[in-house]
Amino acid sequence: MTITRADCVALDADDPLRHLRDEFVLPEGTIYLVGNSLGAPPKAASAALTRVVQEEWAGRLVGGWNAAGWFDLPETTGDRIAPLIGAGPGQVVVGDTTSIAVVKAVSAALRLRPGRRVIVSDLENFPTDRYMVQGLVKGLGDYEIRDVRGSEGLAGALDDDVACVLLSEVDYRTGDRHDTAEVTARVQAAGALMIWDLCHSAGAFQVDVTPADFAVGCTYKYLNGGPGAPAFVYVHPRHQNATEHLLSGWHGHAAPFAFEPDYRPAEGIRRFTVSTPHVLSFAALNASLDVWERVDLAQLRAKSTALTSLFIDLVEELCAPYGLTLVTSRDPERRGSQVSFAHPDGYPVMRALIDRGVHGDFRAPDVLRFGFAPLYIRFTDAYDAAVTLAEVLEKEHWREERYRQRLTVT
Amino acid sequence: MTITRADCVALDADDPLRHLRDEFVLPEGTIYLVGNSLGAPPKAASAALTRVVQEEWAGRLVGGWNAAGWFDLPETTGDRIAPLIGAGPGQVVVGDTTSIAVVKAVSAALRLRPGRRVIVSDLENFPTDRYMVQGLVKGLGDYEIRDVRGSEGLAGALDDDVACVLLSEVDYRTGDRHDTAEVTARVQAAGALMIWDLCHSAGAFQVDVTPADFAVGCTYKYLNGGPGAPAFVYVHPRHQNATEHLLSGWHGHAAPFAFEPDYRPAEGIRRFTVSTPHVLSFAALNASLDVWERVDLAQLRAKSTALTSLFIDLVEELCAPYGLTLVTSRDPERRGSQVSFAHPDGYPVMRALIDRGVHGDFRAPDVLRFGFAPLYIRFTDAYDAAVTLAEVLEKEHWREERYRQRLTVT
Repeated sequence: MTITRADCVALDADDPLRHLRDEFVLPEGTIYLVGNSLGAPPKAASAALTRVVQEEWAGRLVGGWNAAGWFDLPETTGDRIAPLIGAGPGQVVVGDTTSIAVVKAVSAALRLRPGRRVIVSDLENFPTDRYMVQGLVKGLGDYEIRDVRGSEGLAGALDDDVACVLLSEVDYRTGDRHDTAEVTARVQAAGALMIWDLCHSAGAFQVDVTPADFAVGCTYKYLNGGPGAPAFVYVHPRHQNATEHLLSGWHGHAAPFAFEPDYRPAEGIRRFTVSTPHVLSFAALNASLDVWERVDLAQLRAKSTALTSLFIDLVEELCAPYGLTLVTSRDPERRGSQVSFAHPDGYPVMRALIDRGVHGDFRAPDVLRFGFAPLYIRFTDAYDAAVTLAEVLEKEHWREERYRQRLTVT
Repeated sequence: MTITRADCVALDADDPLRHLRDEFVLPEGTIYLVGNSLGAPPKAASAALTRVVQEEWAGRLVGGWNAAGWFDLPETTGDRIAPLIGAGPGQVVVGDTTSIAVVKAVSAALRLRPGRRVIVSDLENFPTDRYMVQGLVKGLGDYEIRDVRGSEGLAGALDDDVACVLLSEVDYRTGDRHDTAEVTARVQAAGALMIWDLCHSAGAFQVDVTPADFAVGCTYKYLNGGPGAPAFVYVHPRHQNATEHLLSGWHGHAAPFAFEPDYRPAEGIRRFTVSTPHVLSFAALNASLDVWERVDLAQLRAKSTALTSLFIDLVEELCAPYGLTLVTSRDPERRGSQVSFAHPDGYPVMRALIDRGVHGDFRAPDVLRFGFAPLYIRFTDAYDAAVTLAEVLEKEHWREERYRQRLTVT
């Protein structure tokens, strides 16, 4: 083999981020390449939750809304996520779910382009982004969805009817990354607004959200906020006071505690909150953001591309005879922090692999996904994963009956 | 005084629910009459969160979605809330916030009454219920809101244009309780659908939601689920498959893991979920529901009305000269588990009271609210609170300058 395990040990020893792995709980004997689906728990998460329950909830009771800063969590947590996506203070709020965030962004975008009736939606978007837009359009009437496939499909889709375009910076299945600057410029040149889904970007690399009009994203993947951690929404400052979104709840009201009968939107990013933040879910996320404060994002990206390139090279070398096809772009610039391979028996292959301690996941119809969360995945992990995958394929472990029975895949 | 403290000590000793107080953390020296805003923490909450983080998240990682039952939390938790509101299994789902639940219920109701364009909304509803409907109507166009004041206002408001009516069973300010059976029958007789907000009902007394078409509610007040605990929505079985709501996310899809490009609603109550549940916030709620499983709701109601009646009697006796006016109904049947009094200087009065360890809250313009969460409030608490209130009023503590400066009230 061109690259040896000893090389990978050396790469790990030289990794400037290597100490960050100690901040996470990772089970012995598991190579966890599913951080692109659910990030590993920060060691500090458990204590953070205990503190919020015992000191804030039990200690302050309802007074926690002010004294413990609960009321402001959507904004204070948003300001902590902002640098990870290239945004400034007052441009990001956290709360609800990505699906709800899509409704906020799209409904706010539509109001900014009143004459235009088309929403462009990518067939490759994560399904819930599509479903939420479909639900919105069905409710609003009078609008239509124009489906495209990838940014290439945009060329023929942009005209004077398009109000906004919703794309994912990194494709959840393929791991491919759009050239957001180029795509955003094209969309905006057509007079439309650009909404990016950053679910597979935030925490995978330094995002530059600033040219975008809106962005949404989740915090439980690379950001390690925990299962169902709250989502975020970015709104460009020029739009914040110029539009409203559909979900006009009391926390987005100009005077939430005046209990006025009619909605009056708050100024600024607070307008994009809805209602009572899920305080306990914020606690784990903020424990993770304490780790993120110490991360150099240039180092993160360098490690991420090195890891994914290494894994591609190794798998292609070791698994050449076994019918795997690289799905993800070979150009590191066009990749997130994930590598996908297709295999006609992808589902049992992945199950056999998981049984051997290498956790990736499977996406229909035939995609094996491997996420490389650069905070805690090592070069030796990439090496060992590739070797194990080759073994599974070579020895045809995946043909065993027990791997072919379909389980629910998450 | 007619009732003595010794009488209250005896009432506490006879209280069949008295042992439940031990299940909650309540600070020494505080009489916490704000459980109608944020419930006290169950002692088990902290350990439940630790278990979810350490055993489920760290132990199962992404596998927790199946192995730890995270994916089904909205339904399994809903089935635990159901008996508290008189619903059956498969009729309640938990997730998101009450504000979002309002959008689900109202948008689903509108589809069931396609010819009707009016939503009746109570001016006394908690503001976010009103704001969410306003946002929805502004988005949908073509609909209008007809504001009424209380169920009395309904008389002239029900006609063939009304699609649905949104009222709160218990008024958040006054603590008054509607006759839901009577109001629901009237609304349905007019061909409209009835949506109840149960935020101040669930956990305050045995609700009978069954005549209603839809209901929404929160779990962080009397249900003690923690700050920002997820909300619930009830959908009558006859409507579940007959309509769709606006927020059509992937967890409400018939096959969420098939990643289909287009939305197809799941059958049953799952259709009313949106997306990834806030797992950590569910953990504390489920710890509280473990306590609720042991509660006899008839005993709960008996204690609640005894507590609120006692408090009303004592305050009226002790505070007669000091300008307090009872806001809440004198008829226990028409009360939730809260007593409100008006006082022209309600804000500084409440601050002076809190300084003396009696925690109620204030709602503009002049309402002092006292919540009696029957799981952990004692008769002696009601007694001591009334005596302290009388002292604050008699000695005019509230005239002290420090109480008059306005703070943010939550």
